Amino acid sequence: MRADFPLPEQARLTEEIESLALIRDPDSPGWTRRALSEVETAGRREVERRMRAAGLEVHVDGAGNLVGVLEGRDRGPALVTGSHTDTVLGGGRFDGMVGVLGALEALQCLAEAGVRLSHDLWIVDFYGEEPNDFGVSCLGSRAVAGNLSRGHLDRTNEQGRRLGEAMASAGIDPDRALSARWNPGDLAAFVECHVEQGPLLEEQGVEIGVVSAIAGIDRAIVNFQGRRDHAGTMPVPMRHDAACAAAEVILEVERLGREGGVGTTGHVVVDPGAANIVPDHSLLWVEFRSIEQAWLQSARRGLEGAVAEVSARRGVLGEVEWPSLEAPTPMAGLVAKAVEDAAVGLGRSVARLPSGAGHDSVQMASITPSGMVFIPSKGGRSHCPEEFTEPGDLAIGAQVLAATLALLDEMTT
Amino acid sequence: MRADFPLPEQARLTEEIESLALIRDPDSPGWTRRALSEVETAGRREVERRMRAAGLEVHVDGAGNLVGVLEGRDRGPALVTGSHTDTVLGGGRFDGMVGVLGALEALQCLAEAGVRLSHDLWIVDFYGEEPNDFGVSCLGSRAVAGNLSRGHLDRTNEQGRRLGEAMASAGIDPDRALSARWNPGDLAAFVECHVEQGPLLEEQGVEIGVVSAIAGIDRAIVNFQGRRDHAGTMPVPMRHDAACAAAEVILEVERLGREGGVGTTGHVVVDPGAANIVPDHSLLWVEFRSIEQAWLQSARRGLEGAVAEVSARRGVLGEVEWPSLEAPTPMAGLVAKAVEDAAVGLGRSVARLPSGAGHDSVQMASITPSGMVFIPSKGGRSHCPEEFTEPGDLAIGAQVLAATLALLDEMTT
Repeated sequence: MRADFPLPEQARLTEEIESLALIRDPDSPGWTRRALSEVETAGRREVERRMRAAGLEVHVDGAGNLVGVLEGRDRGPALVTGSHTDTVLGGGRFDGMVGVLGALEALQCLAEAGVRLSHDLWIVDFYGEEPNDFGVSCLGSRAVAGNLSRGHLDRTNEQGRRLGEAMASAGIDPDRALSARWNPGDLAAFVECHVEQGPLLEEQGVEIGVVSAIAGIDRAIVNFQGRRDHAGTMPVPMRHDAACAAAEVILEVERLGREGGVGTTGHVVVDPGAANIVPDHSLLWVEFRSIEQAWLQSARRGLEGAVAEVSARRGVLGEVEWPSLEAPTPMAGLVAKAVEDAAVGLGRSVARLPSGAGHDSVQMASITPSGMVFIPSKGGRSHCPEEFTEPGDLAIGAQVLAATLALLDEMTT
Repeated sequence: MRADFPLPEQARLTEEIESLALIRDPDSPGWTRRALSEVETAGRREVERRMRAAGLEVHVDGAGNLVGVLEGRDRGPALVTGSHTDTVLGGGRFDGMVGVLGALEALQCLAEAGVRLSHDLWIVDFYGEEPNDFGVSCLGSRAVAGNLSRGHLDRTNEQGRRLGEAMASAGIDPDRALSARWNPGDLAAFVECHVEQGPLLEEQGVEIGVVSAIAGIDRAIVNFQGRRDHAGTMPVPMRHDAACAAAEVILEVERLGREGGVGTTGHVVVDPGAANIVPDHSLLWVEFRSIEQAWLQSARRGLEGAVAEVSARRGVLGEVEWPSLEAPTPMAGLVAKAVEDAAVGLGRSVARLPSGAGHDSVQMASITPSGMVFIPSKGGRSHCPEEFTEPGDLAIGAQVLAATLALLDEMTT
C-alpha cells in the first residue's frame, strides 16, 4: 500500500448516520424510510446535499439513482461504490446507509492520505434497494444493470396500483428507468460497504468481512387443503388437519436449512381459524438461501418430498409453487482480493464469508466486477430498530473502503 | 313397550328440515342462520308457526326460548325435549334442527300410536346455542339453567358492542333473561335428539347413539416470543424462531389428543409474516376435549410441559393461558336407560358413546335429569354445508324419541 490511510474519527460517521436516521416516517415503527415515499424523497435530498458538500458533482440518473462524481486524473471507466439509503418498514439506521455515508467518509480518508484516483469515482445512492409492496427489490441497481423490465413496472400492490405509477408519483419516469442501463465499458469495478446483518464477524471477533458470494434465493408457496371437521367430534386419527400438515413442513424446512444454506417459513396462515374447527387449509411462505446452486436444488427436492409425504400420509392435498428463484452471485475475485489486501495492509483482521442477504452488488455484478466489504452487526440483528454497528467498526469500514478504492484504482489501470 | 310406534314417513322430516333451511343469510356461506340476526328471528317465527300447526300452545320465555306446550293427562312436572335452530357461520341444516323439528315429528308419532302422555310435554327451541361473536354459547339454555350472569351480558364483540345490547336489539330483554331460570320442580326430565356430528355411528353401522356424557372443554392460548432476524443472514442454529416453536406444539397437541380425548390447534398466527424475516411471535388457540376430567388435567400438564421444554430449548419465551374450562357432563342414567330401552324395543341397533360437542343438554343437566339421542352424521361432517343425515335415520330418530318420551313418562310418574 503506497498511501497511509488514517483511521477516521470514530464519532463522525456515526453522527452522519444518526442524523440521517432522524428523517423517518413518524407513523411507522423503527427507522422507517421506505422507497416511493415522501420521507424517502426528503432523505435523498439530504444525501444529495451531503454529496455536494463533499465536493461531488451530483446527478440523478433515469432510474432515480443519486450519483456523485469525483473526477479522476485520467478519467476512463469509473470506479463505483455506494449502496442505498431506503429502509424496510420498521428497519434500522445502518443497512445501506453505511455504504453511502461511509463512501463519503472514505472520500475524506483518501483526501487526507493525499490520494487522487486515476479513475473517476462514482458514489451512488441506489434507488429502492429494499423489497417494496410491488415485490421488486433493487429498483435502481436493477435498472442500471439492464434487468428492469416492463413486467416489473406492471406489478401491482395490494391496492391494485402499478409500480410504474408509484415511481412516476415519486418523480421517476418509468420509461426512462427502463432505458437507464449503464454501459459496462464505462465501469471499472464496483465495491459496496455494508453491515453484515448476521452474527458471524462479531462471533469470530473479526473486523472486516470479504464477501465471497451472495446467496441465491428460492421461494416456495405451500398450500395444504385438508378437511374441515368439528374439533370435538372427529377423532384425531380420522382427521385431515391442514395445520398439523403445515407444522410438519415448518420443522422440515428448519431441518433442511441447518447446514449449507438457510431455510425459513416466514408466513403461516391457517383457516378457518376457530378454536372448535379442525383447520382445512394452510398456507406457508418458505424461503431457502444458499451460495450453492446445488444446495438450493437439493432443498427444493427436500421440500417437495416432504410435502408429498405429509400429504399422502395425512390424506390432504399439498401443493408447492416456486414463484421466484434468484441464482447465487459469486463476487469478482479482483474486488475480493482488493478488499482483503487493503484490510490486511491496514492490519485489520479479515474473514471471507458469504452474504445471506441480497444487495445492489447482485445487480452490479452483471455489468462490472463487483464485491463487498462487510463490517460487524451487533448481535447479527438487522431489519429491526435494534440494528447497530459500533462507531469503531464504522470507522474501520470507511478506512478499508478508502484503501480498497485506492488498490482497485491501481489494479484496473 | 306398551304402544306400537309407527316409523314416520321418511321424506316428511327431511322436507321439514330442508324447507326451514331455505331461511338463510344470503350473504353468508352454507346454511347460515346465526343467533342475534334478522334471519334467525325469521327462522324462529317459522318454527313457532309449525309448533302451533302441530297443536302446541306456544310462548317465548324471558331468555328468548320458544316453548311449545302439550298438556298432559295429569299435568305435574314437564317432560322436556328440543334443541336449537340457530347455526354457526357456514353451517349445515341438521345440527339442532333435528331436535326441534324431530320433536314435532315424534309428537305425531305419539298421536298415531295413540299415546297421550301423563306429564305436560314441552318442545323447546333454545335460543342461540351456537357460539356467537361474544363468546357465549347456549344463551337460552344457560339462562333457564340459571347459569347466565351479568358478566356474560357485558362481554363485547370485536366491534365493542355488548352482548346485552345485541340481545335487546334481537327483542330479548337482557334483565329478563338473567331471571329466566326454570324451576327444577317444574321439570321431570330432558331428552335431546341430535345428529352425532362425528363418524362413529356411521362407522359402526349403528342406528341410535345413547350419549353417556358430554365432553368437557379446556381451552388454552399459547404465545411464543422469539427474536426477529433477517432470514438470509441468521444461521438456523442461532435463531429463536417463534413459528418453529409453534409447529412443535401443534404436533404435540395432536399427539396428546390421539386417545382418551381430542386435541386441536384451530387458530395459528405468526408475526410479522414476511418471507424474509424470521418470525418473532406466534399465537395458538388450543382446545382439549374429553369426558374424563383426569384426562383433561393430564393434557393440560402435557401442553404446559411441551411449551416449557420447547421454550427452554429454543430460547424463546412461551406462555400458556387457560381462559375457559368446562367440566365434563355425565348424562342421567334414567334418561340413557329410557333411550336405550326405547331403541332396543323398536329393534334398533344401539351404542353408548360420548359427545365431543357441547349441547343444550349440558345446561339442562344442571336442573333436571338429562340425556341425548344421537343419530348418524354422514362422514361425521358437521358445522359445514355438507352436514347430512339420511332420511331413514331421521325417521328412526323421531320414532325413538317418541318411544323414549313415552317411557320417560312412565318412569318419572
